[in-house]
Amino acid sequence: MAVATSPHSLLLQNPNRPLPKNPISPATRLNTVHLPAKPISIKCAATASQTQDQRPLTHAPAQSQDRVFNFAAGPATLPENVLLKAQSELYNWRGSGMSVMEMSHRGKEFLSIIQKAEADLRTLLNIPSEYAVLFLQGGATTQFAAIPLNVLKPEDPVDYLVTGSWGDKAFKEAQKFCKPKVIWSGKSEKYTRIPAFEGLEQSSDAKYLHICANETIHGVEFKDYPTPKNGILVADMSSNFCSKPVDVSKFGIIYAGAQKNVGPSGVTIVIIRKDLIGNAQEITPIMLDYKIHAENNSLYNTPPCYCIYMCGLVFEDLLEQGGLVEVEKKNEKKAKILYDAIDESNGFFRCPVEKSVRSLMNVPFTLEKPELEADFVKEAAKEKMIQLKGHRSVGGMRASIYNAMPLAGVENLVAFMKDFQARHA
Amino acid sequence: MAVATSPHSLLLQNPNRPLPKNPISPATRLNTVHLPAKPISIKCAATASQTQDQRPLTHAPAQSQDRVFNFAAGPATLPENVLLKAQSELYNWRGSGMSVMEMSHRGKEFLSIIQKAEADLRTLLNIPSEYAVLFLQGGATTQFAAIPLNVLKPEDPVDYLVTGSWGDKAFKEAQKFCKPKVIWSGKSEKYTRIPAFEGLEQSSDAKYLHICANETIHGVEFKDYPTPKNGILVADMSSNFCSKPVDVSKFGIIYAGAQKNVGPSGVTIVIIRKDLIGNAQEITPIMLDYKIHAENNSLYNTPPCYCIYMCGLVFEDLLEQGGLVEVEKKNEKKAKILYDAIDESNGFFRCPVEKSVRSLMNVPFTLEKPELEADFVKEAAKEKMIQLKGHRSVGGMRASIYNAMPLAGVENLVAFMKDFQARHA
Repeated sequence: MAVATSPHSLLLQNPNRPLPKNPISPATRLNTVHLPAKPISIKCAATASQTQDQRPLTHAPAQSQDRVFNFAAGPATLPENVLLKAQSELYNWRGSGMSVMEMSHRGKEFLSIIQKAEADLRTLLNIPSEYAVLFLQGGATTQFAAIPLNVLKPEDPVDYLVTGSWGDKAFKEAQKFCKPKVIWSGKSEKYTRIPAFEGLEQSSDAKYLHICANETIHGVEFKDYPTPKNGILVADMSSNFCSKPVDVSKFGIIYAGAQKNVGPSGVTIVIIRKDLIGNAQEITPIMLDYKIHAENNSLYNTPPCYCIYMCGLVFEDLLEQGGLVEVEKKNEKKAKILYDAIDESNGFFRCPVEKSVRSLMNVPFTLEKPELEADFVKEAAKEKMIQLKGHRSVGGMRASIYNAMPLAGVENLVAFMKDFQARHA
Repeated sequence: MAVATSPHSLLLQNPNRPLPKNPISPATRLNTVHLPAKPISIKCAATASQTQDQRPLTHAPAQSQDRVFNFAAGPATLPENVLLKAQSELYNWRGSGMSVMEMSHRGKEFLSIIQKAEADLRTLLNIPSEYAVLFLQGGATTQFAAIPLNVLKPEDPVDYLVTGSWGDKAFKEAQKFCKPKVIWSGKSEKYTRIPAFEGLEQSSDAKYLHICANETIHGVEFKDYPTPKNGILVADMSSNFCSKPVDVSKFGIIYAGAQKNVGPSGVTIVIIRKDLIGNAQEITPIMLDYKIHAENNSLYNTPPCYCIYMCGLVFEDLLEQGGLVEVEKKNEKKAKILYDAIDESNGFFRCPVEKSVRSLMNVPFTLEKPELEADFVKEAAKEKMIQLKGHRSVGGMRASIYNAMPLAGVENLVAFMKDFQARHA
């Protein structure tokens, strides 16, 4: 979309970026964490729209030094170029004389936005034509109810494989609308592993098998997927959606809140095999009925237009990066750097999750000396690395390193961890 | 927030604004529609944030001539100064190093945003402390189900006073969850009036009386409210929320999608008397349970953060305008100009709604010669007045003139109407 040589290129390794007050010399940091020797220039989509908007962003090069590295679990960091593009066209979208926030959802401008967002998502995930893509509201938590309400009768049995808090919440909500069974739970082991699929005792009459593909709080991620004995596979992919290629045809339903990898909070994406649509229970609120939304192309009522627009910008950006194969490579590299730093700390840092199922997105870790954890979080925040505190239900720390977390963010964190250890070991 | 003499002041009557191609001389327009003789300078909140953001909006004065007058029924036009402020801080909110879209909903930054939004809304509507304010998802249509699910048992009787399509939809959805009765419907009269309250045959055991305070499609607005014989008054205020003062204490529940008067689509506001909370039916999806949201201050799961932020900016702007008493005066003035133009057209333009209940927000009208309606809409669009086509269910035209529609927009429309009539009468 834009060229690296444009004046809007962003220097990630900005020489003016304040150095940490801790005694890590720039040289040390370069040596230990492999910071690139030359500034990285990233593509800035904002430049592409300069011909359209009336508000040139003349100060872009000075921005990145003001950004924090935001390790929040969601809402989470978004690609810098996407934010700049959104800013450049917030007031007047591509000469329409309106903000996207002001557009009728039935006008040609917004229709072009939602249709392109869906088309780009279909390209990214190679979604087969027999699947519908829905842009809904209410977060994954609404889907915990909508899924049984849409595809089950009240007496239908279903299986839940519970590998963390979110899978557990999904199971509990389903109890209102069907007969769900937990066929395996990692709770007694504090959700640190995923069982072998061969040994799973699936119900022979289960209409679906539900998994949470990546547990945001516990950092447990499916690297492969179980095959349901009966019925379909249903996956909550909220926190690893579009972080790597997925064979959609293995699933009956995939659902994801957008606010981790693909947009702001307020929109939830459901990918569902079309033959599963149209059997909602009578007590289904109309806004939870997939049939209504599928028949109306997500425009039965007013959708969360601006959130969908932002997702569309992120999908464009992911395609420009080379698609999810390339995105996965970057995510693997970032995760490796961080897990290696934990594993090579001689027990100063610890990750409780079994190595084979460690999440590429959410990295929980603790300190050998828990009394230092508050200091760790506080000092990191001073170095502009924020939201590193673990979820209140598990404690410790958690670094969420979604697609949009730059490599430099992980490198900065690892440099800080080594320094912190040197000072406290 | 800012001063009218700032370089960011916007000239609504910009001398560079292209004049209509139709033969209305500027003098004619000034005389007939009372355009102000001097440029109007409006406050531009964007200037207040210039000290914080790193991206000065140096071209603001040139903007307003590029904006269209957007008469869409929702999502709808937003205040220009709110958009400029949102643009100025999209990339880096007040020195936080993050966009609002990236903030953890549990971080101190977003907490300050949602708390201020609620506080400002409470001030605007003078909401008593015994009422909860909830920021939810799913639009008013989700509330059509949530209200009976939260406050009724399946056998409970309730009354619906149906003055347009939205009230009818609310009634139909309620049939899934309780025993609603339509005690009056304007359907046979094409929804053009509201009955006298004295003659209403309310059910003596109804747990609530439901009204739609302003029917967006039909342009019928309650100017006063009926008193329920039994139970509480429940009102869908989606399309006139915050357009005028309302005595909240007369209602048990007020609900409104934000995308007409107070923000972008994606957030729905519920104002509910606290003693009504906590009795949800067992089949209520957790995300539709008011108790969960009230106990968690709308943060049970991830809320639509950016939409809430935008509402907060609009609430600030409404307070700066002097609150809803002042806002109502402006709305009355705009509506009068438009209805007068219709009524004084010797039948060329017609508004079917009974005069005493004509909406200040949505003005439906038809042409004596219906074959000209398509031309009217098309020619208006050429003059940068868009989305004037009536709802597909009723035809004709509709001008939605919410809070954020400038007086100049209505004046331009009226000037165009007079010219159109002169050419086609």
